[in-house]
Amino acid sequence: QMREFLNDQNISDVAELINEFPEYSSQIIGNMSIHRASSVFKILDLAAQKEIIQDLPPFKTAELLNELPADDRTAFLEELPSEVVKELIKLLDPDERRVTLSLLGYPESSVGRLMTPDYIAVDVDWTVQEVLEHIREVGKDSETIDVIYVVNDRGEFVDDIRIREIILANPQKMVGEIIDNRYITLNVNDDQEVANQIFKMNNRVALPVVDDKNILLGIVTIDDVLWVANEEFSEDIQKIGGTEALDEPYLEMPIIKLFKKRVVWLIVLFLGEMLTATAMGYFEEEIAKAVVLALFVPLIISSGGNSGSQASTLIIQAMAVGEITISAWWRVLRREIISGLLLGSILGLIGFIRVVLWNSIFHTYGSHTVLMGCTVGFSLIGVVLWGTVSGSMLPILLKKLGADPATSSAPFVATLVDVTGLVIYFSVAYLFLSGILL
Amino acid sequence: QMREFLNDQNISDVAELINEFPEYSSQIIGNMSIHRASSVFKILDLAAQKEIIQDLPPFKTAELLNELPADDRTAFLEELPSEVVKELIKLLDPDERRVTLSLLGYPESSVGRLMTPDYIAVDVDWTVQEVLEHIREVGKDSETIDVIYVVNDRGEFVDDIRIREIILANPQKMVGEIIDNRYITLNVNDDQEVANQIFKMNNRVALPVVDDKNILLGIVTIDDVLWVANEEFSEDIQKIGGTEALDEPYLEMPIIKLFKKRVVWLIVLFLGEMLTATAMGYFEEEIAKAVVLALFVPLIISSGGNSGSQASTLIIQAMAVGEITISAWWRVLRREIISGLLLGSILGLIGFIRVVLWNSIFHTYGSHTVLMGCTVGFSLIGVVLWGTVSGSMLPILLKKLGADPATSSAPFVATLVDVTGLVIYFSVAYLFLSGILL
Ligand SMILES: [Mg+2]
Ligand SMILES: [Mg+2]
Ligand SMILES: [Mg+2]
Ligand SMILES: [Mg+2]
Ligand SMILES: [Mg+2]
Ligand SMILES: [Mg+2]
Ligand SMILES: [Mg+2]
Ligand SMILES: [Mg+2]
Ligand SMILES: [Mg+2]
Ligand SMILES: [Mg+2]
Ligand SMILES: [Mg+2]
Ligand SMILES: [Mg+2]
Ligand SMILES: [Mg+2]
Repeated sequence: QMREFLNDQNISDVAELINEFPEYSSQIIGNMSIHRASSVFKILDLAAQKEIIQDLPPFKTAELLNELPADDRTAFLEELPSEVVKELIKLLDPDERRVTLSLLGYPESSVGRLMTPDYIAVDVDWTVQEVLEHIREVGKDSETIDVIYVVNDRGEFVDDIRIREIILANPQKMVGEIIDNRYITLNVNDDQEVANQIFKMNNRVALPVVDDKNILLGIVTIDDVLWVANEEFSEDIQKIGGTEALDEPYLEMPIIKLFKKRVVWLIVLFLGEMLTATAMGYFEEEIAKAVVLALFVPLIISSGGNSGSQASTLIIQAMAVGEITISAWWRVLRREIISGLLLGSILGLIGFIRVVLWNSIFHTYGSHTVLMGCTVGFSLIGVVLWGTVSGSMLPILLKKLGADPATSSAPFVATLVDVTGLVIYFSVAYLFLSGILL
Repeated sequence: QMREFLNDQNISDVAELINEFPEYSSQIIGNMSIHRASSVFKILDLAAQKEIIQDLPPFKTAELLNELPADDRTAFLEELPSEVVKELIKLLDPDERRVTLSLLGYPESSVGRLMTPDYIAVDVDWTVQEVLEHIREVGKDSETIDVIYVVNDRGEFVDDIRIREIILANPQKMVGEIIDNRYITLNVNDDQEVANQIFKMNNRVALPVVDDKNILLGIVTIDDVLWVANEEFSEDIQKIGGTEALDEPYLEMPIIKLFKKRVVWLIVLFLGEMLTATAMGYFEEEIAKAVVLALFVPLIISSGGNSGSQASTLIIQAMAVGEITISAWWRVLRREIISGLLLGSILGLIGFIRVVLWNSIFHTYGSHTVLMGCTVGFSLIGVVLWGTVSGSMLPILLKKLGADPATSSAPFVATLVDVTGLVIYFSVAYLFLSGILL
């Protein structure tokens, strides 16, 4: 009766069941038809997948891996260490093995890794009737039949047709007559983020993947792109927060692993931030002469950090969705200089008023109120301007250097601006207060 | 020949053309078949859409709006001020007007706003043959024919069937015989983020939307969910950086509008950060006695900000993808206390070594090196622990209060921890150095 119960559930419900009772995962999978088992397997997270593969009897593992759609098999195998991959690939039938090896041969996070070779291809000179018969024959094994792919004798891609066109067409018409010669292809070497953009801008459920010679290699379906979008954004968010990408759900990660993902950046930032102690040490005499200067240090440097965090995340987001490319750096810089001056002036003004106001009420900042106010105000303009400019340019520079723009995390930019902000602050202070307080 | 040229292009290419030559946008749209014009219109960004609506002659605007799929029309209208919406709705045919008003009646960012009523519904007791004939009749106007919806006489949803099942089935079979009674429905009042999760976990290109009485109201297609995913994540990223959600591409926003989106939070954070000046003022005497204390202020408070940024973005991301709900707060808190202690101890140790080492080389920090090192070290443990705990709890608390968790941005958490970090630091200093330096 377990079989029957499982058979009545949606695959997402079975996946939830497995997440709730991980100890029964291999039993649950083992008690489903192999087709449905593979549908559940592919939406589980890596930890659950690994456990199932370890616990199932070898013949079941083989069955499961062979049944898994090629693209989902790639997605699973690419997360495993290469010795394990080698063992698992031995379990595959020769055909599936060949396909899997070739898919794993494409670079990480390329379109090739997302692709499945299970699509329906037809010839330009078939009739609609013949196409429908072909679909009835091979449709069961195809990832989607919502789109049909037209190729010529050399295997070159010619066009795609939606199934609706086929169904709505006169059965005697030739394929060549109903295609519209408008199509979009993905290149097998494109980045997966490109696929996300292209799917967003084109109303398709699947897109053909070709190589540089326009040979049709496979298709990518939109459901897998939705996963990519979710993953890429999650990665970006984690990096913006100053953590390495987790690659696993937060709550399911062992704490020690979570710790490792966080501690590296935290130490790097700490070492960078140590320069503030050095910088402050350099100005120790000035601080001793005018302790009032020290009071505003946190306020001023953190304002630079905040404006820098704003700028860098705005640019990271815009680059992630393809709005900004490296070549737009000059337009970005111009905008950020203007924004930085505006934002800095507002904060500078508030800062100036704060100093003057407090002093007229509490008489806390000594006798040179206006000069002190100017020091705070102009430092803020400089620090905020520097924050927006460096925060906005850093992601572009990182991309240019081939690194991930999201590495210019909010904490990273804040640290960078803390150190330089101190130098700006004490320089401005020297300008206004030298000979008076300093 | 412009018509012909445009006819040969993909809709995404036409959209790019419009982005490059915005001054010709209404001419380009006006020179396409109304069906393709609407396909281009719906993928343009809001600024371009507005311009086209303003520039087109009124009868063309009416044609375009009537042709636009109901869901894309909602997506456009919901961004406009209500006076404009009223004017535009007058241009619609009575049928489309009724549909549009009912879709706009659903709450913002609910599934109802994503839905289209253009789907194919069939009856349980039809034959496959009849279904195919029905598709040929009404398929042209349907958003998708990849999935067919089965309803009963009362309009209640019964099941969905993929077109592949229809094509692969014997034409004499009844619909009731080929349905599997497994389906997933979205509730019209669900949040759009729920739709994203459900699509991710179920291999469907479209899902039926029902009300609380299980009446089929419409469908949501996966291509629109991909847009939602992109938008929601972009919003979250922008908020995490401490900006309001832009709702427009960065480069296309007027600088003054961009400024407004940034300045509010920056001022709020600045006013919050002013408390650091107050706190520092409170410890002014201590600083005057031991200037060395001031040197480590930026290092210590920013370490709290960094660990807090890490924690809060990790939790925001996990909540965005539905991994963490409010009820998991206790599990999160336990994990973050352990993580905070581990991370704080590492940084504390490095900080201690730094103080002792520097002093043995440069003799900069006076004679009470070990005590000063302990002050820095233990402050770091306290500040980092406080950073991770408050950073992780804040998004959950915000959600609990009905606010967006992403509001607990990296700069926000950093500011919060800066103020409390100072209090922690000077308290620890008092503990170790009172009677000696203080
Ligand atoms: Mg992957
Ligand atoms: Mg085509
Ligand atoms: Mg799929
Ligand atoms: Mg797939
Ligand atoms: Mg990636
Ligand atoms: Mg990325
Ligand atoms: Mg800071
Ligand atoms: Mg919207
Ligand atoms: Mg069903
Ligand atoms: Mg659509
Ligand atoms: Mg749609
Ligand atoms: Mg939203
Ligand atoms: Mg959100």
